[in-house]
Amino acid sequence: MHEIGVVYRNVERAERSVAEELAAYGSATTHEAMGRIGTMKPYLRPIYAGASASGTAVTVLLQPGDNWMLHVAAEQIEPGDIVVAAVTSDCTDGFFGDLLAASFKARGARGLVIDGGCRDVRSLTEMGFPVWSRAVNPKGTAKAVLGSVNVPVVCAGTLVHPGDVIVADDDGVVCVPRALARRTLEAAARRESNERTKREKLASGALGLDMYGMREALSAAGLRYVER
Amino acid sequence: MHEIGVVYRNVERAERSVAEELAAYGSATTHEAMGRIGTMKPYLRPIYAGASASGTAVTVLLQPGDNWMLHVAAEQIEPGDIVVAAVTSDCTDGFFGDLLAASFKARGARGLVIDGGCRDVRSLTEMGFPVWSRAVNPKGTAKAVLGSVNVPVVCAGTLVHPGDVIVADDDGVVCVPRALARRTLEAAARRESNERTKREKLASGALGLDMYGMREALSAAGLRYVER
Amino acid sequence: MHEIGVVYRNVERAERSVAEELAAYGSATTHEAMGRIGTMKPYLRPIYAGASASGTAVTVLLQPGDNWMLHVAAEQIEPGDIVVAAVTSDCTDGFFGDLLAASFKARGARGLVIDGGCRDVRSLTEMGFPVWSRAVNPKGTAKAVLGSVNVPVVCAGTLVHPGDVIVADDDGVVCVPRALARRTLEAAARRESNERTKREKLASGALGLDMYGMREALSAAGLRYVER
Amino acid sequence: MHEIGVVYRNVERAERSVAEELAAYGSATTHEAMGRIGTMKPYLRPIYAGASASGTAVTVLLQPGDNWMLHVAAEQIEPGDIVVAAVTSDCTDGFFGDLLAASFKARGARGLVIDGGCRDVRSLTEMGFPVWSRAVNPKGTAKAVLGSVNVPVVCAGTLVHPGDVIVADDDGVVCVPRALARRTLEAAARRESNERTKREKLASGALGLDMYGMREALSAAGLRYVER
Amino acid sequence: MHEIGVVYRNVERAERSVAEELAAYGSATTHEAMGRIGTMKPYLRPIYAGASASGTAVTVLLQPGDNWMLHVAAEQIEPGDIVVAAVTSDCTDGFFGDLLAASFKARGARGLVIDGGCRDVRSLTEMGFPVWSRAVNPKGTAKAVLGSVNVPVVCAGTLVHPGDVIVADDDGVVCVPRALARRTLEAAARRESNERTKREKLASGALGLDMYGMREALSAAGLRYVER
Amino acid sequence: MHEIGVVYRNVERAERSVAEELAAYGSATTHEAMGRIGTMKPYLRPIYAGASASGTAVTVLLQPGDNWMLHVAAEQIEPGDIVVAAVTSDCTDGFFGDLLAASFKARGARGLVIDGGCRDVRSLTEMGFPVWSRAVNPKGTAKAVLGSVNVPVVCAGTLVHPGDVIVADDDGVVCVPRALARRTLEAAARRESNERTKREKLASGALGLDMYGMREALSAAGLRYVER
Repeated sequence: MHEIGVVYRNVERAERSVAEELAAYGSATTHEAMGRIGTMKPYLRPIYAGASASGTAVTVLLQPGDNWMLHVAAEQIEPGDIVVAAVTSDCTDGFFGDLLAASFKARGARGLVIDGGCRDVRSLTEMGFPVWSRAVNPKGTAKAVLGSVNVPVVCAGTLVHPGDVIVADDDGVVCVPRALARRTLEAAARRESNERTKREKLASGALGLDMYGMREALSAAGLRYVER
Repeated sequence: MHEIGVVYRNVERAERSVAEELAAYGSATTHEAMGRIGTMKPYLRPIYAGASASGTAVTVLLQPGDNWMLHVAAEQIEPGDIVVAAVTSDCTDGFFGDLLAASFKARGARGLVIDGGCRDVRSLTEMGFPVWSRAVNPKGTAKAVLGSVNVPVVCAGTLVHPGDVIVADDDGVVCVPRALARRTLEAAARRESNERTKREKLASGALGLDMYGMREALSAAGLRYVER
Repeated sequence: MHEIGVVYRNVERAERSVAEELAAYGSATTHEAMGRIGTMKPYLRPIYAGASASGTAVTVLLQPGDNWMLHVAAEQIEPGDIVVAAVTSDCTDGFFGDLLAASFKARGARGLVIDGGCRDVRSLTEMGFPVWSRAVNPKGTAKAVLGSVNVPVVCAGTLVHPGDVIVADDDGVVCVPRALARRTLEAAARRESNERTKREKLASGALGLDMYGMREALSAAGLRYVER
Repeated sequence: MHEIGVVYRNVERAERSVAEELAAYGSATTHEAMGRIGTMKPYLRPIYAGASASGTAVTVLLQPGDNWMLHVAAEQIEPGDIVVAAVTSDCTDGFFGDLLAASFKARGARGLVIDGGCRDVRSLTEMGFPVWSRAVNPKGTAKAVLGSVNVPVVCAGTLVHPGDVIVADDDGVVCVPRALARRTLEAAARRESNERTKREKLASGALGLDMYGMREALSAAGLRYVER
Repeated sequence: MHEIGVVYRNVERAERSVAEELAAYGSATTHEAMGRIGTMKPYLRPIYAGASASGTAVTVLLQPGDNWMLHVAAEQIEPGDIVVAAVTSDCTDGFFGDLLAASFKARGARGLVIDGGCRDVRSLTEMGFPVWSRAVNPKGTAKAVLGSVNVPVVCAGTLVHPGDVIVADDDGVVCVPRALARRTLEAAARRESNERTKREKLASGALGLDMYGMREALSAAGLRYVER
Repeated sequence: MHEIGVVYRNVERAERSVAEELAAYGSATTHEAMGRIGTMKPYLRPIYAGASASGTAVTVLLQPGDNWMLHVAAEQIEPGDIVVAAVTSDCTDGFFGDLLAASFKARGARGLVIDGGCRDVRSLTEMGFPVWSRAVNPKGTAKAVLGSVNVPVVCAGTLVHPGDVIVADDDGVVCVPRALARRTLEAAARRESNERTKREKLASGALGLDMYGMREALSAAGLRYVER
């Protein structure tokens, strides 16, 4: 993994319908459904409020200050993909802007997750092309050093293989490994239906202490109540 | 202070009316009225633009990666309270989401200030439940290690006692010790009426240099004017 | 440079019309037109979405925790200026709020770029006075230690001379040295017209790989395509 | 608390002998003996390897970029004290150098803990005057704005009252509230004697899994062993 | 991958002799020999100057504020291993100290790489047990929440599989995938012998511009020389 | 300024003797002698304790992840120079190692100040070639994108012109503009002789409050003394 100078083609993707259905549950429920794993670090933020996207990952490994491989990646995009770009070292340059977005969108991409900077956020917002990035930065990049496309990458602390499912929204970004996608969707559905009931009870004044039966465990752990 | 494993009940609160009136002056004026102290560090940000809340503090001391005590705190909330959650070490996990928000809101809480992460921000925004947090993060937490409720805590660099007044808005969060609440309100009212006049003068072109009589002090300090 | 205790008056400014026209191209295109330089670090963010401003720089050198010099700077503002405030050491205090904004606006300022904190963001938003700052913070400042006005300053990593052109928008902030302003405007115009065509081609499905003729260079650099 | 412009004199201190004995146990054991609380954030680092100090706290509240109050604090130092300096906002200026160190040492201070910067580290190392700081920085400070001495302060995230015990070493800094000092010393002694035996067993190859009897709890929590 | 609650036993390791020989080349040469990949982020620092270690990875996935799995990992250590500990979210607590070090050392571990905090650094230095950590911190941790042992982990931005080779020294930490270990060793040997000659030439005054034949490429790229 | 793709030759340097004499006063005294300006941000740290250097600046503007221009700079070094390297965006890659150090040393360089990463720190320490960097990092860089040599640069927040004097030691790095070098040396000498007397007085127990005559100003500012 982490090969430099390679583009893998015809990558096997998770089922697109699974990716789409997971979007409805959101990043928080999805990561809980996987066993509370898979979230990218919270410094990745959407460039506009209300951004939401899911898809199958086309991965890109960039070099700092260089966005050449994003152009190479464009050709590998299939409708329903989401591009996930890592950088070999921390860099907040504006690797991505409205020209690449026009290209990615034309190829069918649902959005971009990039462990670097993004620019042209007003145009991207008008286009409705969502990006999750670690910075917004007008500074542009060179096209001089090779990286790779569709190799496994570590993006914002999380391993992503090409073809994995990405769920991104206001809360952040989660990666679901391809092999776990269907099972995660089922678990998310169960969890969500379960939460709906709980939400209603809590909203009507019930306490989690009672609803989850926590009082005994808290007491066993030594929690003391003291009157002031 | 900083006891672990204790919940203090029936904490004495500042007068709620004072908390409510301070909200109208905002966090900046409130902290000036106290003598320019009491602000939490600016990495705490509201999860949506326009968020505004004030109330009396129910304090929570959490352990990293663990939100058990938020459930314990829910029972201690009285209408008009605002929950202030500190963590024993820096952690950006999503300790709080829409289920807890439903519960807190049902108990009468006005909002949450948390020196950690928050999730479900879209739902929280729709519910109108304001949160000031150091991160937005889908990652969930365990319920396994005791902290405390209603002990003094240090939240985002500022000491908060249970019952203190919290004023939070677009600018950030300020804590007013209970014993200073009334006096601070009076000082805020004086300051605000004073500022209104100044604002008008400045808006019509007067210079602060003249209005505040700064020229002499600047000259005494050695300020020189040079023509280019 | 970096003299302490001096105010330079009657600073020579770039042509205001150039500053205004550059605003239409935005910060990203402007910095590309200069040869991909001049951007401030991306931790400077606008206090509200959609903020946009350009103008000629009145520079201010502040001391940490002290905004005295912003009052001194107000007198040096001419219509069409934008104030650029640096601090002698990193500080996120709320140096600037609605009173100073009322004064700056009355003098004709188009906005503020400050390598420190800002407060009263709700009022500033209502006034439509845009600020790019490294923090939003209710904490106020003293007026006790001299800095300077209209000396060259380093703001968010970028050198700014008084009279330089500043272009600031959603993407960030760029400084164009006065002597390069006209030439940069011409280059921006050429670049923008060039980009319009490209954007259309890419939006209709053309690949940058072909449009920019990158395939040969990528191959020469050793890029390999592998079927999965 | 957090009053500005006040110096409290004749503060009651913890017993100095307790402070001295705690130093032998170190910061890690001391904070465990308190119930795993009281550590300052780990960005505070000693200016030289092997630094170690303990004492009773003289507290100082500084303003950003201003070290006036350190001069005021010098007069309040008694032999066996350690100075703990907080700043009203984050600032890495070099507030403290060899002149103040000469003064503090002459008054009997054992060291300095400062939530800001320090300079003259070569001289301080030669003098054997230990400092725990958040930065080393040649930049000096003004003497223009009042803070306070011997008020409660929040230093690196931890509340410190004047007279509390401070234990600082290679690992970091811990504050033991005065009222808990003796009890903490006793608990530290017990813990240390307990650890000595454990350390020997572990060093001879015993597993913590067995020594602490963890296997059952791990299994109950669901830990599975899988052969590769 | 990233399973929670699993311990893989009898993991296949890279050849230990390869791990040992790579140590002599150091982390910088090793990562160059792999194609300039595999370095962990530079916030990982050795706890003492001169620290150096290599070995085969036993991986640990910790939860924030919890070191239970380090005890579980101890049993899986074989002589020549180096423990690599990731945390499911950023946390600087002191997960590791001298008791665990005694145990790890007794089992044959060569060191620890941890994307979290470490304590007891004086004892660890005396024991000669090297640790690369993101913080030094006296704060201890709980033993309450399951993680995993010998699953693939992302540590300081780099993917590590159990059995991979780790090379760590003053410069930082590099991970060499097991399958690439022998090939990397051979490339490192070639590179090193190559560099020795270059170093001598440069030390005697030769210019890299000439030695590497860079002048033509620089000129072709447009570099201009201007006399002042 | 900030031109890309240019090397200025035969730059006018400050007098070398002045640079050498300033080293004896150190970075803290030098910056005070200039009027408390000119310090680089404190994230720049020496790679070994006790590092000290001064010289005249050869400046380099690097691109992120690319050290080509350091090779170009080597040719411009004259004995007594110190190389100051800025990067067009934040990057912690290991731009500099022992090969370049051998070359720089052979050309007469006294050290390197780099707003990026450095590697081979053990070899550099053995060679006695001091480096002040923002990171230590084994990760290497490409040689593909042009920057510049001997243009004005902003390094760690401070403007440096080629030929300026750099003073670097344990405390950090200061830049003295060429035109101010002699005057700064004289002021440093006066300050140092002045400080020697003060240091002795303070070491014998005198208080700064009395020695500097601060009591009156403190009282006028409103400082109150309160008995506990």
